[in-house]
Amino acid sequence: MNKKFNAILKKTAITSVSLVLLMASACKKDQPVNQTPDQNLSSNQTNAIGQAGPVGVCYVEVNSNDMLEVGKYKLANGKQLFDIGIIFAANINYNTTTQKAELFFNPQVTSVLNNRATKIKPLQDKGIKVMLSVLGNHQGAGFANFPNQAAAQAFAQQLSNAVTTYGLDGIDFDDEYSEYGKNGTGQPNSSSFVYLVTALRQLMPNKIISFYNIGPSAANLSYNGVTVGSKVNYAWNPYYSTYAVPNIPGLTKSQLGPAATDIQATSVTTATTNATRTVNEGYGVYLYYNLTGTNKSTYLSSISKALYGGQGTTYTP
Amino acid sequence: MNKKFNAILKKTAITSVSLVLLMASACKKDQPVNQTPDQNLSSNQTNAIGQAGPVGVCYVEVNSNDMLEVGKYKLANGKQLFDIGIIFAANINYNTTTQKAELFFNPQVTSVLNNRATKIKPLQDKGIKVMLSVLGNHQGAGFANFPNQAAAQAFAQQLSNAVTTYGLDGIDFDDEYSEYGKNGTGQPNSSSFVYLVTALRQLMPNKIISFYNIGPSAANLSYNGVTVGSKVNYAWNPYYSTYAVPNIPGLTKSQLGPAATDIQATSVTTATTNATRTVNEGYGVYLYYNLTGTNKSTYLSSISKALYGGQGTTYTP
Repeated sequence: MNKKFNAILKKTAITSVSLVLLMASACKKDQPVNQTPDQNLSSNQTNAIGQAGPVGVCYVEVNSNDMLEVGKYKLANGKQLFDIGIIFAANINYNTTTQKAELFFNPQVTSVLNNRATKIKPLQDKGIKVMLSVLGNHQGAGFANFPNQAAAQAFAQQLSNAVTTYGLDGIDFDDEYSEYGKNGTGQPNSSSFVYLVTALRQLMPNKIISFYNIGPSAANLSYNGVTVGSKVNYAWNPYYSTYAVPNIPGLTKSQLGPAATDIQATSVTTATTNATRTVNEGYGVYLYYNLTGTNKSTYLSSISKALYGGQGTTYTP
Repeated sequence: MNKKFNAILKKTAITSVSLVLLMASACKKDQPVNQTPDQNLSSNQTNAIGQAGPVGVCYVEVNSNDMLEVGKYKLANGKQLFDIGIIFAANINYNTTTQKAELFFNPQVTSVLNNRATKIKPLQDKGIKVMLSVLGNHQGAGFANFPNQAAAQAFAQQLSNAVTTYGLDGIDFDDEYSEYGKNGTGQPNSSSFVYLVTALRQLMPNKIISFYNIGPSAANLSYNGVTVGSKVNYAWNPYYSTYAVPNIPGLTKSQLGPAATDIQATSVTTATTNATRTVNEGYGVYLYYNLTGTNKSTYLSSISKALYGGQGTTYTP
């Protein structure tokens, strides 16, 4: 399906001056979503949905909303609006007995993962990548305080196992609510997050790794000459309703999302203005948060028209 | 007292090669603490405590700790360790009846301010600047969502009035816990924080304005060609135990604090390493958080030796 979309897009682009201009000024949504940064991995890139313009990334709070909503929005040309849907969120917990970080799924996240056939695969069948976000959980463990490389490696293995077990397309890191220091855990250090993303990249060279740019992890993006930017595919601005370019050494414009839109809270004017800026300034990602079961096609149309050369968005329940 | 310290320092610097080298590579603590950024305000600069090296800034959680602790630490040469003490924290509340933001003091903050003679002035008499931090309070109002310039101006007036009423040296902004959108408030916008700091700078040209670099305000640092950096004196990294240079257009190295040290949580090794980096990389601020009533002179000595040419710190109860 992706290949077909790409073929259609390429044909259109060649015959359409306006689309060619758009493609020249903006990043290409028909470029690989999984822009694996390591050179030796370039042969493993997967294709995205095939629409010129920024990649659309959408978090879904699965505690109260359905992942399938991500697949219900299409552009006027029939392509999916969202390229990536993110399950929000798994947690990094702390086991006080073993004194180790543990990947944790609450009942709602567990339900989505266990019902992969009906909640994840249908999206993937539409060409949408489905990722799992991991968030701190007030227990002291976080991405920025692994005490050593082995501890980071062990958690990366848990993440990679989850991706394999549940047929996911990648992992997103959200370094909030860890309460570093709690339960006798350590404070953030400069090696932890770099060790984590390095190990995870090695374990899953073909998958997507993304970073919601906040927290102590955002303040430790380089260690011993290795940058987080060389290991992750994307990073985005974490502050909804704002436009701010994340400062992530090693990432290019096509891998950055400066616009952060909360679908339930950001005004359509702000969301649309930020979409226009994303295109005009040549960034490759547009981030959406909190898609619910309510039809938001009017709102999303305003954004998609700015992102994708005037194309509106329709909702198919 | 400041002038005397400056004189002593200058004499020492001229005769000491190592100190001259230190001064050449690092920022000068004997430069004005109040580096008012507007050119026409340069005549209003006040002097700091007169120690070569980064300005020491220390938050005190006054809900459970005594501001006077800030004045109890001295370097080996008799100068104060901390140049700025910050009362943490006042709040930005939201009045749902008037639909306006209101500066709020909880009972502990109120007590410090009302007891200015015994809790603020003694510090100022030692040459220490005393500032008031303002923090969101889960009511929807924040620095980043004033709906218009007049609303930002009105809140700036409240801040300026507090500085005048309580004889403070400035205002610090900490954009956390606002819960933008709550109580029918707006989402962050691009003009709000710039309007706020612009108005506040105009109201109090001789005072210090600083920014704890976090939140939607951190994602809206420029509007209509005016930068937050041109209005504030300092900004610092908000993530304790980390070292990260804030990205604030308009501020120079001497106005930035990349090291963030939680005195109760950051390891002495990390705190000291980050102090050395601050000096080596030429930044002008070192940030401390959570000074309590416990004598931390051993811990602070390790930091001060790195910051101030080998000088330890002593505690005088």
